[in-house]
Amino acid sequence: MTRIPFDTLETTIRNAFLRAGMPEAAAETCARIHAESSCDGVYSHGLNRVERFVDYIHKGWVDVHATPFCVEKMGLMEVWDGQMGPGITNALAATERCTELAKEQGMGLVALRNTTHWMRGGTYGWQAAEKGCMAICWTNTESCMPAWGATSECIGNNPFIMAVPREGGHIVLDMAMSQYSYGKLQVTRQQGKKLPYPGGFDQEGHLTDDPGAIEETRRILPMGYWKGSGFAVMLDLIGAILSGGRTTAQVDAYGKGSCGSCCQIFVAFDPARFGNAESIREALEGTIRHLHGAKPVTPNGEIRYPGEGTLRTRAENLLAGVPVDENTWEKVRALAGF
Amino acid sequence: MTRIPFDTLETTIRNAFLRAGMPEAAAETCARIHAESSCDGVYSHGLNRVERFVDYIHKGWVDVHATPFCVEKMGLMEVWDGQMGPGITNALAATERCTELAKEQGMGLVALRNTTHWMRGGTYGWQAAEKGCMAICWTNTESCMPAWGATSECIGNNPFIMAVPREGGHIVLDMAMSQYSYGKLQVTRQQGKKLPYPGGFDQEGHLTDDPGAIEETRRILPMGYWKGSGFAVMLDLIGAILSGGRTTAQVDAYGKGSCGSCCQIFVAFDPARFGNAESIREALEGTIRHLHGAKPVTPNGEIRYPGEGTLRTRAENLLAGVPVDENTWEKVRALAGF
Repeated sequence: MTRIPFDTLETTIRNAFLRAGMPEAAAETCARIHAESSCDGVYSHGLNRVERFVDYIHKGWVDVHATPFCVEKMGLMEVWDGQMGPGITNALAATERCTELAKEQGMGLVALRNTTHWMRGGTYGWQAAEKGCMAICWTNTESCMPAWGATSECIGNNPFIMAVPREGGHIVLDMAMSQYSYGKLQVTRQQGKKLPYPGGFDQEGHLTDDPGAIEETRRILPMGYWKGSGFAVMLDLIGAILSGGRTTAQVDAYGKGSCGSCCQIFVAFDPARFGNAESIREALEGTIRHLHGAKPVTPNGEIRYPGEGTLRTRAENLLAGVPVDENTWEKVRALAGF
Repeated sequence: MTRIPFDTLETTIRNAFLRAGMPEAAAETCARIHAESSCDGVYSHGLNRVERFVDYIHKGWVDVHATPFCVEKMGLMEVWDGQMGPGITNALAATERCTELAKEQGMGLVALRNTTHWMRGGTYGWQAAEKGCMAICWTNTESCMPAWGATSECIGNNPFIMAVPREGGHIVLDMAMSQYSYGKLQVTRQQGKKLPYPGGFDQEGHLTDDPGAIEETRRILPMGYWKGSGFAVMLDLIGAILSGGRTTAQVDAYGKGSCGSCCQIFVAFDPARFGNAESIREALEGTIRHLHGAKPVTPNGEIRYPGEGTLRTRAENLLAGVPVDENTWEKVRALAGF
């Protein structure tokens, strides 16, 4: 592990995207988002995804020249088509639009279909919060996890994001429906470690904290067992129906890689339309005091609100440089022509 | 365990509510919902909650004469005040209203504050689905679960519901943020059994499947560990801000029992406004085929969609009678004057 200055990371990724044929504005935007994801500690969807994204461009699974457009307007709701363009630029545009609608009408909803992998879902929660909006967003994916009761992959891990803007640091939840990502399993195995809690089933069908055993069976655990499994199904169906797009089963059949032609929902609310600043501030600060005031598991332990750790990681990585896997970094440097 | 015909169950509960001072229409409605919850297999929030609800009426924590009213209209969104009336009648009214708004405008949202325990959250998902609407609903609660990293209760278990209407049986998810309810722990302990998977921490701070050990520490596990913990915080904040009502911390301070003065969000979508019937049917049936076609853990195992088991339990209990705990049943009969 080595640390790279944020700007170097961003510039290198941008050049990799430019060399893959992306137009300049899109390459810059996508490079910034990938760099920010790594900087925020979401290493699985930052630098680590650059090589695969470039591969998808070469395969024609992502159309770098496509831009999303509004298919239908229904008051504060809009249905958009992503035209298989870059998932990041599509999702940023959808988030921007739903926050605009929220500022005008209190709430906005953009249902985006026919898009591609949005990388780190939290990006769009942070973006909405920066615009002063609360947000609820989710995506469906291809089948990548067994449903509860199954051993074969048949549901998406369908990341789900909620955000609340706050002066002292936004409150942002970004969670996939699997307890751990495959990225986390891989990293833990490479470090010769066990998972902190069981993350899937081994060959004998027992829950295990051994990441390698789970990678072999591919029976990763939905969060909360049957709960995350059911939640994934509902997000898939509601997302596909609102956007008129493909369900997980249909994404599988389409066969254009991870999240190829998936659906995403972006909902934003302008808190100012629902209450005065003082009562909202008290709701937020009172809740954070309540959490911080709880009895910690270990004497000096912390109870953090969603997003609290992200802000700390971001500050640390901006100062000390963003940690990167050296092998991955060299590959991206090669893609960038450096 | 004995089985009681649905009608007998409903009539008995209705009489218990009438004797507690509820007006006839509300008593009938609430009795039907409690009986339906038991009939659907959600025993923790059906007959089992009648005694506590009557106690809340006597304590003045629920105003049986109160009806909810609309505080503010914002297009397809409305903010309602439940006036500390019965949680069931308040939530039914809010669901009814948001499905009306959805039929008119594609979507409806009712943010309800100052209400009381809605009993089984799934009730409102099934109600919306019966009206032909997709739904997303949630409630906050008092602090009843430690946040991740805490040993003291500081977050709600904030049930979250999603529903999709379907001709062959609605698809409904009803999940609290805790992995198991205290009701489940109690029943499992009384049967001398272990939980199927760890459900909390024991005195030594280890995860355990021993329900009694968890009841002692009160360290029940959020579903998905840190994920359910963060999700509970977000539902609380967004619910309280949209409704202008009390957060979990503020519900605690209010001190009117379980969910006393909580907030609830009801969102409904009319699927017909987002796509044609044929493509929606194919999205639903294709997904169910995909789930049912996955490889089951055991040779004859089933992979069920959310709500599939409920429909089966309902049919069985309507035919054979609703299973009740005899002790609880006698108490409710006494409350009913039988």
